[in-house]
Amino acid sequence: MTRQQLVEQIKKKQSYLCVGLDTDITKIPEHLLSEPDPVFAFNKAIIDATKDLCVAYKINTAFYEAQGLKGWEAMEKTVHYIGDEHFKIADAKRGDIGNTSDQYAKAFFETMPFDAITVAPYMGEDSVKPFLQHKGKWAIVLGLTSNKGSEDFQKLELWENERLNSWWNLFGSIIHVKPSELQLYKKVLLDVSRWGSTDNLMFVIGATQPAEFENIRKLVPHHFFLVPGVGAQGGSLKDISEKAMTKDCGILINSSRAIIYASAKEDFAEKARAEALSVQQEMKQYL
Amino acid sequence: MTRQQLVEQIKKKQSYLCVGLDTDITKIPEHLLSEPDPVFAFNKAIIDATKDLCVAYKINTAFYEAQGLKGWEAMEKTVHYIGDEHFKIADAKRGDIGNTSDQYAKAFFETMPFDAITVAPYMGEDSVKPFLQHKGKWAIVLGLTSNKGSEDFQKLELWENERLNSWWNLFGSIIHVKPSELQLYKKVLLDVSRWGSTDNLMFVIGATQPAEFENIRKLVPHHFFLVPGVGAQGGSLKDISEKAMTKDCGILINSSRAIIYASAKEDFAEKARAEALSVQQEMKQYL
Repeated sequence: MTRQQLVEQIKKKQSYLCVGLDTDITKIPEHLLSEPDPVFAFNKAIIDATKDLCVAYKINTAFYEAQGLKGWEAMEKTVHYIGDEHFKIADAKRGDIGNTSDQYAKAFFETMPFDAITVAPYMGEDSVKPFLQHKGKWAIVLGLTSNKGSEDFQKLELWENERLNSWWNLFGSIIHVKPSELQLYKKVLLDVSRWGSTDNLMFVIGATQPAEFENIRKLVPHHFFLVPGVGAQGGSLKDISEKAMTKDCGILINSSRAIIYASAKEDFAEKARAEALSVQQEMKQYL
Repeated sequence: MTRQQLVEQIKKKQSYLCVGLDTDITKIPEHLLSEPDPVFAFNKAIIDATKDLCVAYKINTAFYEAQGLKGWEAMEKTVHYIGDEHFKIADAKRGDIGNTSDQYAKAFFETMPFDAITVAPYMGEDSVKPFLQHKGKWAIVLGLTSNKGSEDFQKLELWENERLNSWWNLFGSIIHVKPSELQLYKKVLLDVSRWGSTDNLMFVIGATQPAEFENIRKLVPHHFFLVPGVGAQGGSLKDISEKAMTKDCGILINSSRAIIYASAKEDFAEKARAEALSVQQEMKQYL
């Protein structure tokens, strides 16, 4: 799916909601467990109930891999069932040396018809580039994530030689004022944004980090952000939308548990729809 | 497999070789393509030909995922076929928020009987910890990787506040000498090594970075290193062994393409054995 097609869907549906299919077989309603493929049956019902309210689905590969072969099969059936009107994200956090990233790109873009895959940046340019070489396909690279562990490495401050060598900053260091901060995740955003374009590259920015959003938007003004962490993880839809939205929207907000597990009973799809509808109605105001 | 069991295997076989099963269906000998499962048939022959010469096998998940359901099935069959005498590594580069890393741990440690999984550190402590909570299982966290992209982020120098605020380092900055270097990957090694023990945590250190090996060994003196990049990627076995070996070996050296693709003809298994044997014979001298 191209950027233009995605933006058209957003305008048409008045929604930038991504529904996260983190389908955990231990959490789906009991009556589905007698189905031949309970995970797919659950996903199918959620998709049918929400497809006019969201523009994207995000499949968290871990939950499928945990079920082994049956899980992988449920994932393949689900991505095919979603169809071409939605932006299909493999939330897989892949990334390896070039010849291996190539194989991951093949797995998710050719063997399966995903539009995008989430990618971890630690291994650098040659680990990300293979995901950018498939027409109409996207890499969504981790910038600042929604979890507590984002403090551990992503927010480390870097030593910037050029800055430090200037007299101004030398003076700054004498009076214990640090040069303007460049944290690792900002360097990641700046560098990675040069490896692709706004047509094949997005970034993951966690909704639980609202204080950072305005500065992040200044660093990468035109890229789409995939924003997890609204809902179960506590991020605010209003806050994020105000701070990160661009002229053509520029954000996909993901909600997984709050929607798909809105009810654990037979009315789960109905309740998921109600939850998705309430998010979409709020989004409509911000667009 | 425990550390003690692994070290026993190393001593018994006089080998610290890990054979990498990066099995690419486009590269296996033609006569295997008529088999019902060509990838598994290839792996089975390689395992039979090398099992007395190596202590570990590393399955690169990307090559299996690229084949979809059939590939996942070949991976499951392969890891079961290897059995309990070898250390079985899922080279999967996973890592996500806690509840998702939990599912990956389940996939590779419970649904499949791997002993270890490679993990990307970018998302921090809560993304790594779930892999450390399974008895006898290991997380092998990326430290310094073998690819060119390791320069992009892993070698960035960090700003260390405490150091800079000392008068000594202030003086250093005036005469354009930087405080002693702390690159990101070193910080990763130091921090991650505190999240687990030498019994459930290893690090990936690429063989293509020999200049760094002595310093790295000083930072994490007792952890096992999984070292890729010998062979096709150009690293030297002798160099790495001299610089990184500990009293109980402490290194697993991976070779993938140089062994499994030693021949593309019907004698592929025989040639793979010859290649593995020559590596093992060299290893014997260093032990």
